[in-house]
Amino acid sequence: MEENNIKQNILRFFEKSRGNYISGEEISNNLGMSRANIWKHINALRQEGYMIDAVPNIGYKLLMIPDKLQGYEIKNGLETSTMGQHIYYYDYITSTNDKAYELAENGAKEGTIIVAETQSGGKARLERKWISPLGGIYMSIILRPVVNIEEIPAVTLVSALSVSKTITSLYNLKAEIKWPNDIFINSQKICGILAEMKGHVDKVDFVILGIGININTAINDLPPNSTSIKTLTKNIANRVIFAREFLKQFESDYTQFINEGFKSLKNECAELSTLIGKKVNIKMHNTILSGLALGIDDKGALIIKNELGDMKRVLSGDVLMCR
Amino acid sequence: MEENNIKQNILRFFEKSRGNYISGEEISNNLGMSRANIWKHINALRQEGYMIDAVPNIGYKLLMIPDKLQGYEIKNGLETSTMGQHIYYYDYITSTNDKAYELAENGAKEGTIIVAETQSGGKARLERKWISPLGGIYMSIILRPVVNIEEIPAVTLVSALSVSKTITSLYNLKAEIKWPNDIFINSQKICGILAEMKGHVDKVDFVILGIGININTAINDLPPNSTSIKTLTKNIANRVIFAREFLKQFESDYTQFINEGFKSLKNECAELSTLIGKKVNIKMHNTILSGLALGIDDKGALIIKNELGDMKRVLSGDVLMCR
Repeated sequence: MEENNIKQNILRFFEKSRGNYISGEEISNNLGMSRANIWKHINALRQEGYMIDAVPNIGYKLLMIPDKLQGYEIKNGLETSTMGQHIYYYDYITSTNDKAYELAENGAKEGTIIVAETQSGGKARLERKWISPLGGIYMSIILRPVVNIEEIPAVTLVSALSVSKTITSLYNLKAEIKWPNDIFINSQKICGILAEMKGHVDKVDFVILGIGININTAINDLPPNSTSIKTLTKNIANRVIFAREFLKQFESDYTQFINEGFKSLKNECAELSTLIGKKVNIKMHNTILSGLALGIDDKGALIIKNELGDMKRVLSGDVLMCR
Repeated sequence: MEENNIKQNILRFFEKSRGNYISGEEISNNLGMSRANIWKHINALRQEGYMIDAVPNIGYKLLMIPDKLQGYEIKNGLETSTMGQHIYYYDYITSTNDKAYELAENGAKEGTIIVAETQSGGKARLERKWISPLGGIYMSIILRPVVNIEEIPAVTLVSALSVSKTITSLYNLKAEIKWPNDIFINSQKICGILAEMKGHVDKVDFVILGIGININTAINDLPPNSTSIKTLTKNIANRVIFAREFLKQFESDYTQFINEGFKSLKNECAELSTLIGKKVNIKMHNTILSGLALGIDDKGALIIKNELGDMKRVLSGDVLMCR
């Protein structure tokens, strides 16, 4: 992390110089390290894709920042107190959730995130795979909520709400929540969420929230009925800004969830839900429940009125179709 | 397991012969293996503490069965269909729960049990240690309940009920449940339960139920305010019979829990509870809740009426004292 801090400080210098050359001496004086050391880190940044010009007796100038989710890019200007304060970044990983699980078992703090440019074994619900081409954001967040186990299923909805609000505030697109863990824009999937957990039955040790979002992903790289921000806006989005904004929004929503309960967020979730007011078929274990989705309750369960007029609470299930 | 099956079959032969000598030829014919092979297994049994007499031209006779919880002893006459059908036995282990967790992660079936004569790192709730001297039963059961996560906390109570009923039926002692996970006889602790779990927030992968019971444990080896079956009955109990009876009882109670919900067992639990009708102080996270324990609800939560007359549900907590 020390090395990443130096890189982050050098990048902040470039940011302050606003496109001007800055002397190696000035950087080395300010960071209290040798010019040779600065040179070493400049070269490391270049290997990560930063284009940095060097002119003898004048100094360095940052020409281009690569489109990467590097921790020091996300942290630069991150307005949170816990979420994303510790970042593990990978160009390539099998699964950010698996890495997060391992780190959490070894004591990683709440708010620690794992981000990757691509995953070979991205996980989705019901043992499905989450396709993870370049251009997306694949992020896992370690949470240590001090709540009863029965409050935990709502964590997925809280994060879905935060993703939806971030998309709307940055790109002015209406992102809807398909209960319990997907986000759709114009009936096409843009984000999936997978929450795993470990604990005692009466005390949660940790929850791993895995989030995959199609940002600059090419439409041809995605499964059918999916879309990406780039496809919808016809612009390359800044993924680092997305990550920062999402972390800020999620910290706010998650803190509200912990302090006031899911109850305080359920109306917002219901308003953004694709299912409420629709007839749905939900596969639960080995049965299929059909009925009208009436709303979401205080624990995040979907309330269904079946054909006999009975009310059913559904905490987990696979929505097969809705109309 | 093959080797254990052979040992189990040999021990069944001895059982059938009811204290008579049985020829090596008869055993070898029946099991379809060489007499040399039988001899090898007889010797292995001897090393585990079985006293087996061998007289040339006459045969073998079982003189004494060691007081061990060997899987083939438990399985011999076990009347269950899942619980204890796969047994991992250890003379010594750090923690049966940790071993069960590892096996469950690698796909071990529901009902698989791990038993040990002693543990060096036995686990109790709230990161405490479970003292595990010789003479106790230290058992972990792998469960894969297909229920919503909010039903899971009740699993501890279901198993406490089964332990209590087993103690009463075998020794005619009144064993009471101190919500949520301990069992007391005459206000002294005889059993503790620790349930751990892993899963997705909307689907449980597995629950590990760890149970420690003081059976023939010497009172001097136990922490203060503890007791053992041997101390109470002044007799050495047969731990193998205890394990078998408990597994049978638990299979019955657990099946009822899965099929009919905890609701169908809560009255039985409430009747055996030490807390109902008493004033209690319960430490929850960082606060202490004081009030009158009124009952147990459909999810296994304790219902407390506080001093203002408000009803509170407590799903997890540490009972500090009650009177």
